[in-house]
Amino acid sequence: MPTALAEIPDGSVTSPRGFSAAAAHAGLKADGALDVALLVSATSCATAGVFTKNVVRAAPVVYDADLLSERPGRIRAVAMNARVANACTGADGLAAARAMAQAAEQAASLPPRTALVLSTGVIGVPLPVPPIADGLRDAAARLSTEGGADAARAIMTTDTRPKHCAVRFETPTGMVTVGGIAKGAGMIHPDMATLLAVLTTDAAGEPASLQPLFRRVVDRTFNAISVDGDTSTNDTAVLLANGASGIDPARDGALAKLFEDAVLAVARSLALAIVADGEGASKLVEIQVMGAVSEASAREVGRAIARSTLVKTAIYGADPNWGRILAAAGSAGVPLTVDRLTLEAAADGEWLTLATGGATAHPDLARARAIFQQKTIRLRIDLGLGRAEAVVWTCDLTPDYVRINADYTS
Amino acid sequence: MPTALAEIPDGSVTSPRGFSAAAAHAGLKADGALDVALLVSATSCATAGVFTKNVVRAAPVVYDADLLSERPGRIRAVAMNARVANACTGADGLAAARAMAQAAEQAASLPPRTALVLSTGVIGVPLPVPPIADGLRDAAARLSTEGGADAARAIMTTDTRPKHCAVRFETPTGMVTVGGIAKGAGMIHPDMATLLAVLTTDAAGEPASLQPLFRRVVDRTFNAISVDGDTSTNDTAVLLANGASGIDPARDGALAKLFEDAVLAVARSLALAIVADGEGASKLVEIQVMGAVSEASAREVGRAIARSTLVKTAIYGADPNWGRILAAAGSAGVPLTVDRLTLEAAADGEWLTLATGGATAHPDLARARAIFQQKTIRLRIDLGLGRAEAVVWTCDLTPDYVRINADYTS
Repeated sequence: MPTALAEIPDGSVTSPRGFSAAAAHAGLKADGALDVALLVSATSCATAGVFTKNVVRAAPVVYDADLLSERPGRIRAVAMNARVANACTGADGLAAARAMAQAAEQAASLPPRTALVLSTGVIGVPLPVPPIADGLRDAAARLSTEGGADAARAIMTTDTRPKHCAVRFETPTGMVTVGGIAKGAGMIHPDMATLLAVLTTDAAGEPASLQPLFRRVVDRTFNAISVDGDTSTNDTAVLLANGASGIDPARDGALAKLFEDAVLAVARSLALAIVADGEGASKLVEIQVMGAVSEASAREVGRAIARSTLVKTAIYGADPNWGRILAAAGSAGVPLTVDRLTLEAAADGEWLTLATGGATAHPDLARARAIFQQKTIRLRIDLGLGRAEAVVWTCDLTPDYVRINADYTS
Repeated sequence: MPTALAEIPDGSVTSPRGFSAAAAHAGLKADGALDVALLVSATSCATAGVFTKNVVRAAPVVYDADLLSERPGRIRAVAMNARVANACTGADGLAAARAMAQAAEQAASLPPRTALVLSTGVIGVPLPVPPIADGLRDAAARLSTEGGADAARAIMTTDTRPKHCAVRFETPTGMVTVGGIAKGAGMIHPDMATLLAVLTTDAAGEPASLQPLFRRVVDRTFNAISVDGDTSTNDTAVLLANGASGIDPARDGALAKLFEDAVLAVARSLALAIVADGEGASKLVEIQVMGAVSEASAREVGRAIARSTLVKTAIYGADPNWGRILAAAGSAGVPLTVDRLTLEAAADGEWLTLATGGATAHPDLARARAIFQQKTIRLRIDLGLGRAEAVVWTCDLTPDYVRINADYTS
């Protein structure tokens, strides 16, 4: 995180000025837990959105993409629910997404077509609109600038921890704050997965410049994490800028850079929290790919390693099976020259070379094993082909992942 | 299997005339089990080969591809070993592959450059040539037309069963036999994985026509199975035709079709044996994709479903979570129209519609669960876009898969 950025303790989507939120229990989660949330901005937001690449898009994704293409400068609220994804629900599902958005708008006394809707949970089950509408009314009555953390809790599915954070930075004319909440756990993979992320800022902005900025940030954060290689029907990341700070970072080059850094810091923090909380995960793995001809090809190689179940099970077993890592890199669909490949691993700052020239570097096996036994493992692969690089994060694959997913709907 | 084909009980690569084989213990497997095998043809074979698409190719793959491009009509033998893959071993590895081939040629008194080499096992470890050469000499001294099953046993790694079979068919001028052995278990995925398959036939053939035939067969069999989505450095499938029957099926259209059916039957039988014996697998899943615009796109959709860990864990848990299956189809990178998607499931011959028009078909859940509890589950997805189709096979993902792969090298 750049030194000019300050982390806000217990920050969230309600840390930036002009945002309030609340959560409620609408009866969707069996245990009485929060399952519906509402985020509201006091004024209209310029909004950027990045959605799943899965061609089977859930109804809320279809609804939001349409709304953002029509009114990207007019968003006032985000209504969220867990437990039911409203995916594979046909025309009724789209009507239900619309009804949920309208319920949010009415509950918060907002104009029509100003609320986005985010859903996560089981696919193929109809969205129960009446209880969700009740929950949104309940939440609207209790909107608070302290409500962001509750909203993060409401959208949890198999997540074990709520995910929220915020940063701020000073400018000559005042403070700018960026905050966010997210949920992840299963189905996390590059190009998104059941990942919901809502970022807010009191910076001012235009949708036309906010969208490419947010796309760059998402590619380096939410699209650079992988839990299980599955991509979901519901992935959505949105960034709402309400301008309450009175500061438009786009007006100044250095400020624009600082603002993008702030959005990146929040998104990266949420992305890492998601992968560290992957279903059944016991370890976090950072994969740095260097020496690539392009950032895109570096990311592809990183993703191939990150989605390899053989690599992920070896890491679970603390087995420094570097051959599987090179083999996974080779399956990325990116041209590689095997005898230029170098692979290193580290747990702290000290790197151990596992392979060089595409063959074993005869590493100290005891040291290699010690690295792979740590909770956070860093891998660095140099392709020896160019100067581009990318970082991808993943977690290990454990018997718990299988147990969690073997019996989700029933 | 076409009715004109007869299965040979306990058949293998030595069922076709003119082939003999033997296996030996070369000290690679700790428990004294067979770990080296040698297959020899009495005469030169026209040979077709299909190799891994992973750009990190093991030394034996590099060696064999080179030999086949140079002398596809002159192959006499296949030398095989388990436990060490000779992958990511650099220039020394290629020299070791060459030395292994030469050891086989000398042991069986064959001309130079007539033996292929197949290795499987741990990546990145040097191939111990001297004990393997000893083992090949031992095997060469005991070559037998009954030796095919032992060869299948020698190449097993985490396989729990040897895989071998053979079929024959009558022609007006005599009998033609096709046989094969294979190993699989982990790392099985379309475009091959640590999959070794050796097919033999006493039909006559030209390399130029054998190669496209074998490519078609491999695409519909070994490239249509998936265990864990990983592709390996060592995948190799070869077909050796020694002409000992005196019959060249290519000379007659009907005969050519029957011959391809025979090769297909052997390859499919081996491929299904591999997927049913996937690491930790408890269930076999057949995925039929219909209504596609091309066979290639149908296969891509099938593969996307077959590699989805969320689908595979749901099947392990007997959870009829059809939404995950549609979501996996949507991630295939193939254009789909969601409201045309139909999904059915069956365990026996009776199909149950789970989803229609991309949404729930309100299936009888007890019946759906009963289907997903069977050992063999059939899924049928109709894309509603065209008339092409493809079949892909996979297995479930179980806690045992994780346990097997968490500690493989150590």
